[in-house]
Amino acid sequence: MNFRNFPMVPRVVFGRGSFDQLDEIISPKRKSDNAPFIFLVDDIFKDTGLEKKIPLKHNDKIIFVNSDTEPKTFQVDTLRDTIVQEFGALPSGVLGIGGGTLMDLAKAVAIMLANPGSSADYQGWDLVNKPALYHVGIPTISGTGAEVSRTTVLTGPEKKLGINSDYTPFDQVVLDPDLCTGVPRNQWFYTGMDCFIHCIESLTGTYLNAFSQSYGEKALELCHEVFLNGALSEEESRDKLMMASWHGGMSIAYSQVGVAHAMSYGLSYLLGTRHGVGNCIVFDQLEEFYPEGVKNFKQMTDRYEIEIPRGLCGALSDAEFDTMINVSMGMVPLWENAMGKDWKKVITPGKLRSMYEKM
Amino acid sequence: MNFRNFPMVPRVVFGRGSFDQLDEIISPKRKSDNAPFIFLVDDIFKDTGLEKKIPLKHNDKIIFVNSDTEPKTFQVDTLRDTIVQEFGALPSGVLGIGGGTLMDLAKAVAIMLANPGSSADYQGWDLVNKPALYHVGIPTISGTGAEVSRTTVLTGPEKKLGINSDYTPFDQVVLDPDLCTGVPRNQWFYTGMDCFIHCIESLTGTYLNAFSQSYGEKALELCHEVFLNGALSEEESRDKLMMASWHGGMSIAYSQVGVAHAMSYGLSYLLGTRHGVGNCIVFDQLEEFYPEGVKNFKQMTDRYEIEIPRGLCGALSDAEFDTMINVSMGMVPLWENAMGKDWKKVITPGKLRSMYEKM
Repeated sequence: MNFRNFPMVPRVVFGRGSFDQLDEIISPKRKSDNAPFIFLVDDIFKDTGLEKKIPLKHNDKIIFVNSDTEPKTFQVDTLRDTIVQEFGALPSGVLGIGGGTLMDLAKAVAIMLANPGSSADYQGWDLVNKPALYHVGIPTISGTGAEVSRTTVLTGPEKKLGINSDYTPFDQVVLDPDLCTGVPRNQWFYTGMDCFIHCIESLTGTYLNAFSQSYGEKALELCHEVFLNGALSEEESRDKLMMASWHGGMSIAYSQVGVAHAMSYGLSYLLGTRHGVGNCIVFDQLEEFYPEGVKNFKQMTDRYEIEIPRGLCGALSDAEFDTMINVSMGMVPLWENAMGKDWKKVITPGKLRSMYEKM
Repeated sequence: MNFRNFPMVPRVVFGRGSFDQLDEIISPKRKSDNAPFIFLVDDIFKDTGLEKKIPLKHNDKIIFVNSDTEPKTFQVDTLRDTIVQEFGALPSGVLGIGGGTLMDLAKAVAIMLANPGSSADYQGWDLVNKPALYHVGIPTISGTGAEVSRTTVLTGPEKKLGINSDYTPFDQVVLDPDLCTGVPRNQWFYTGMDCFIHCIESLTGTYLNAFSQSYGEKALELCHEVFLNGALSEEESRDKLMMASWHGGMSIAYSQVGVAHAMSYGLSYLLGTRHGVGNCIVFDQLEEFYPEGVKNFKQMTDRYEIEIPRGLCGALSDAEFDTMINVSMGMVPLWENAMGKDWKKVITPGKLRSMYEKM
């Protein structure tokens, strides 16, 4: 048996208002006055107080990015090319400010500023050869675990798959729960459920070990407090969900996700469904695999009066179903984690089609 | 308010038997065939299977260290001098294999191989100027949290105080619960209680935040499973206690310890009491400050039929009491965490003396 030598985020600040320390945190990492910090920022923050607080100096640059769609390999390549064209010399670093999309873009752009070719060339495990540029993750919504993960999930021309490498994790993360103030209810819920689902998939998986279990159990408890049965103030809720996301990310980092993620990747690849809501659409139908988790999930949707979209797959063609099924069945480690080496005895194309048809 | 930018251990392997991967893990860090890895190993492992599994190559060297006493600054300096004398050029790295003493020695020696003077010069906060040599922590007993901490606690000529710096944490930790097989019952309990006490002190402290709380709560749950109410196999118990130590260490790293540690530092400084048992001796008398924690502590000592030593302080002179009291009252952040800014209203020399007299 070979155990992973997991790369952890080597620096973390936690606290309400800690974003105000950003200048002090990144200044020692500036290579020169001509080597800017590039801030990739979700465009919902354009003309907001957060934009004004970004500590720009010299030729630092904010690039606003729309996160209505999942991050794409061509988007990463374009961002890299734009930066190289404008600044010639390599920047001092790349910072992502936003949700999972911005986290993943910042990680991927930092990798691609140091490695040749297209980001699509690196989708897979350990294909990156050179260390990424210094990169910082500053989440503004909690749940994805992208702030601690060893991957950056991109949709490419041929697949939706992460750049999974030792160079992917952030060099620095700033966890400021105040930045999550004002997230729309549905988005908050869907993204939070990404974390909840990480926990269920990790804790019930065959890859589980005491390391993952301890992180996953804590993250699950925190999700329960936030979504199921806690009586928290808004501040406490933001604090705890940010920690849930962190611990949930650590849990899957040292084990694996499962059925919901395997199927939601198919959905996202074909229909462009955003990851958070896609997971919810799938998980809603997984009573067979995660009875306790799905029971709690339904209690949480009830408590917060969230309508999970349905009827996405009703009008799909056979070819479209096949595409989804192929993408999903390609996620071998996820299925193996969920049900062991013999997973193909249960998960056939026909079985997947009948499950997708309910969504 | 200024939040800490905490340095986390950037690489971790977890798993029963993961020690066997050590060669593969450290090989890429070898600077040259002449730059050895120095293995600081608890001398209880002399002529054991573990010694034989240490992957020595080229001029790598094992130095056995006795851990019957707390680590000292002169011991660190001597180890450093011995290594420099024998190898001239700087080693590739320092590995600590053992309990908290070996963890702390490895961290301190790695720092002192890169910084001039005596380790006593660096006891305090952020006094280290140059990055330590590559250093690896491999715990063989669980509880201290030294594997994740930002400090290495040393007894110097003038004080017992940590070298607390961004360069202190290990570059790599190997968590192999199998290495904790065969630890004597008392030592297992005392060291495990170090973790339990970390949790109680962190979770009841005024420095608490959602980050520390999430780690502390999980570590406490794991301690309860191991010591209070779990029905675990020996393997599970070792796994879980190793994770408890890890999470407990993270919890205090982002908050602080409290009364038990403040008083046990005094005890160790004067009497050389080992940290684990010292904490237990003190905590046993802290019902006033930690009623719930002390209740559980007594249940745990009962369950495992552990006798906490008493009567240590009966024959001490006034001058000796004063020494202990001074060392203890010098631990300002610990007292502040335990009872807020006004701690001196409660904790007077007289109060401390009456408490020490019970021990």
